[in-house]
Amino acid sequence: DERRIELKHGAGGTAMRDLVNETLAANFSDPADALVCLADMDDGAVVPIGDANLVVTTDTHVIDPPFFPGGDIGRLAVSGTVNDLAVMGATDVRGLTSAVVVEANYPVANLERIADSMAATCAEADAPVVTGDTKVMGNGELDGVIVNTAGVGIAEHVTPDAGLSPNDVVIVTDSVGEHGISLLAEREGIEFGSDLESDVKPLNGLLAAALETAGEGVTAMKDPTRMGLAGALNELARKSGVGIEIREERVPVTSDVKGTGEMLGLDPFQIANEGVAVLGVAPTAAEDVLTALRDHPKGTNAAAIGKAIDDHRGRVVLDTGIGNRYLREPASEPAPRIC
Amino acid sequence: DERRIELKHGAGGTAMRDLVNETLAANFSDPADALVCLADMDDGAVVPIGDANLVVTTDTHVIDPPFFPGGDIGRLAVSGTVNDLAVMGATDVRGLTSAVVVEANYPVANLERIADSMAATCAEADAPVVTGDTKVMGNGELDGVIVNTAGVGIAEHVTPDAGLSPNDVVIVTDSVGEHGISLLAEREGIEFGSDLESDVKPLNGLLAAALETAGEGVTAMKDPTRMGLAGALNELARKSGVGIEIREERVPVTSDVKGTGEMLGLDPFQIANEGVAVLGVAPTAAEDVLTALRDHPKGTNAAAIGKAIDDHRGRVVLDTGIGNRYLREPASEPAPRIC
Ligand SMILES: Nc1ncnc2c1ncn2[C@@H]1O[C@H](COP(=O)(O)OP(=O)(O)OP(=O)(O)O)[C@@H](O)[C@H]1O
Ligand SMILES: Nc1ncnc2c1ncn2[C@@H]1O[C@H](COP(=O)(O)OP(=O)(O)OP(=O)(O)O)[C@@H](O)[C@H]1O
Ligand SMILES: [Mg+2]
Ligand SMILES: [Mg+2]
Ligand SMILES: [Mg+2]
Ligand SMILES: [Mg+2]
Ligand SMILES: [Mg+2]
Ligand SMILES: [Mg+2]
Repeated sequence: DERRIELKHGAGGTAMRDLVNETLAANFSDPADALVCLADMDDGAVVPIGDANLVVTTDTHVIDPPFFPGGDIGRLAVSGTVNDLAVMGATDVRGLTSAVVVEANYPVANLERIADSMAATCAEADAPVVTGDTKVMGNGELDGVIVNTAGVGIAEHVTPDAGLSPNDVVIVTDSVGEHGISLLAEREGIEFGSDLESDVKPLNGLLAAALETAGEGVTAMKDPTRMGLAGALNELARKSGVGIEIREERVPVTSDVKGTGEMLGLDPFQIANEGVAVLGVAPTAAEDVLTALRDHPKGTNAAAIGKAIDDHRGRVVLDTGIGNRYLREPASEPAPRIC
Repeated sequence: DERRIELKHGAGGTAMRDLVNETLAANFSDPADALVCLADMDDGAVVPIGDANLVVTTDTHVIDPPFFPGGDIGRLAVSGTVNDLAVMGATDVRGLTSAVVVEANYPVANLERIADSMAATCAEADAPVVTGDTKVMGNGELDGVIVNTAGVGIAEHVTPDAGLSPNDVVIVTDSVGEHGISLLAEREGIEFGSDLESDVKPLNGLLAAALETAGEGVTAMKDPTRMGLAGALNELARKSGVGIEIREERVPVTSDVKGTGEMLGLDPFQIANEGVAVLGVAPTAAEDVLTALRDHPKGTNAAAIGKAIDDHRGRVVLDTGIGNRYLREPASEPAPRIC
C-alpha cells in the first residue's frame, strides 16, 4: 500500500468516509448494546447508562487562523461539540473535555484569549468542561494550536441522521454559509464594507426548545459542518432511505454571503457552518417547531426549506424555481482547516 | 503578557498545572453535581448519571516516534485513556473516542498499522471505540500523526488521588521505567543486547481484580505517567494530605532499566510509564489485593512499596536503605513527546 494521506481525507466527504471504514475504524467492533454506533457514522454515538441515553462525541479543531471575524478556535471547539451532542438529541450536556496541543514558542496571551472564549461559550451553552489535557510539541512540529473537545450528554429522545420519513418537513435553523465564506474571505485577505463574519455558536438551547415543543415529532437532526448544507442533506437522505426535496429560494442566505461567495467562486450550500442545524420534523409538528425556533434568539431566521419524499431515495432534489437538479455532496472541501 | 509556551508547559508538572489553573482552565466552572472535577486535577472527572458514577477523561498522544519497541501510538492511545478511567475506578469502559490528526503525505499503511493496534488493544481491554474524528493538516503543519482518545466508564467505587489515609499500603502493579527508558534509548539510537522495550498496556482488567477483592478497601489509584512514579506519589501525598514512605529496594525496576537509565543519566522513578498503576489500599485489605494482583497475568511483579504516614504531609520520603531523603516530583520531563 503506497498510498499517502491527502487533504481530501480530512474533508468530511467520501474520501474521509472510505479512509475511516477501510483503515481507521476497519477493525473496531461496536459494543452490543450501543443504540447508535460507529457503523451509523452519525454525529455521535449513543450508549445506554442505566435508563439514560448517553451521547458521546469528539472533534479536533484545527482551524486556521485561530482568530477570525466572529469567533475563534475556542468558541468553535465548544460550539462544535455541543452541537454534535445537541443534534443527536443531547441538549443536556453533562461534560466536555478540552485537550489542547500547542507549539513551543506560542504566545501565552493567545492561549488566554482562546481559553476565555471557551469559558464564555461554555457558560452560554450551560456546558461545563470537566477535564482536559495539555501537550506541547516542539517549535515547527505543529502549526500553532489545535483543540480537541469530546463531550457527553443525555438525550431523552435520540434524533439520528436515519430518522427521516417521507413527508417530514426539513427545517434549517439559520442562514447558511457565514462561517465558511467569512473565513475564506478573511484568508484571501478580501476587505468588505460589510460586516460579514462567522456565526459560530452553540445551539443546544435552541434545539432544546424544538424538542420541548415536539418531542418525538423531531425525527432527525444534523449539523451541516465540513460538507456544508449539501453534505448534511445528502447524508440525511442516504441514511434515512428517503429523497429530500429542497426549494432553493427558501434556504436563507444573506446577500453578503451570496455576493462574497460569487466573488470567491464558492457555493454557500457547499461550505462549512458551525452554528446551524438541519431538522426533520413530522408534518403535524412542523408549524409548532418553526414557531418555537423563531421565538428563540438563535432561531429568528429559521425556515422550512423542503421535505422528505418517497422517490429519489438517497438523493437531494433542488427546485431552482425554473426546474429541478440534484444537489450533490461536494467532492471535497473548497479549502482545508476551516473548522 | 509576553510569555511564550515552553516544552515544560506540556510536561505534566508544576509549569503545566500553573498554566492550566491560571490560563487554560482559569475561567471554567465546574458543574454543581460533579463528584470529581477540574479543581481536583485528577485522572478524570466524575459526573453522576442517574445512580451511576460516570468517569470522563481525555488525553492527546503525541509520541515520537509513533512506532517504538513494545508498542505504538495506537496501543498507547487506547491504554492511556483506559488506564486513566481505570485508576478512577471505572474499569468498566463504556466508550472511547478516536480523534486522529494527520499530516498530508503521511503513508496510509502507517495509519493502518496504528488503527489495527488500537483495535487489538481495544479488544484486549474490552473497551470499544464508539465514535471518532479525522482531520488532515497540510504537509509541514504537523509532525506526522497524533491521536486524542477520550473515554467514559462507570465506577462502582471511585478511587481518587485524594483517597489515601495514614497506614494505607502503597502498591505498584509492575516494575517502573520500561516505557520511558526504552523510548529514550531508542531515540538516542542506543543498541542493546537486551530486549528492553515499552510495557505499555491497558490495566482495567487487572485493577478490576483488585476492586473485586477489596471494594472500598482500595482507597486511591493513579497512573504514573509523564512525571513518573515520583510525580504520581507526590500528587497522591499532596492531594490526600498525608506523607508517603517508600522503601526504595521494594520498588520493582528491571536490571535492564537500571543499567540503561544509568547510561542515559535517567532516573527510572522519574520517567513516564503507561502500563503501571499505583494503589493505596487499607491495611486490612493489602495482603488480599496483592495476591489478587499477582494472580493476574499483568500483575505478576506487583509489590507493596511503602505506606501513607501521618507526618511529612504532602511529601514522599524515600528510605534508601542507608537513610531517608525526599523523593521530589521531577522539575520537568527529561524529554518531550514520550507519551
Ligand atoms: N478516526 C475515526 N475513527 C472512527 N470513526 C471516525 C473517525 N473519523 C470519523 N469517524 C466517524 O465518521 C463519522 C463522520 O465523522 P465527521 O467528523 O465527519 O462527523 P462530524 O463530527 O459530525 O462532522 P465535523 O467533524 O465536520 O464537525 C462519525 O460518525 C465519526 O464517528
Ligand atoms: N487544557 C486543560 N484544560 C483543563 N484541564 C486540564 C487541561 N490540561 C490538563 N488539565 C487537567 O489537569 C490535570 C492533570 O492533567 P494530566 O494530563 O497531567 O493528567 P493525566 O492525563 O492523568 O496524565 P497524562 O496526560 O500524563 O497521562 C487533569 O485533571 C486534567 O483534567
Ligand atoms: Mg456533526
Ligand atoms: Mg462535528
Ligand atoms: Mg492527560
Ligand atoms: Mg493519569
Ligand atoms: Mg493520562
Ligand atoms: Mg468530526
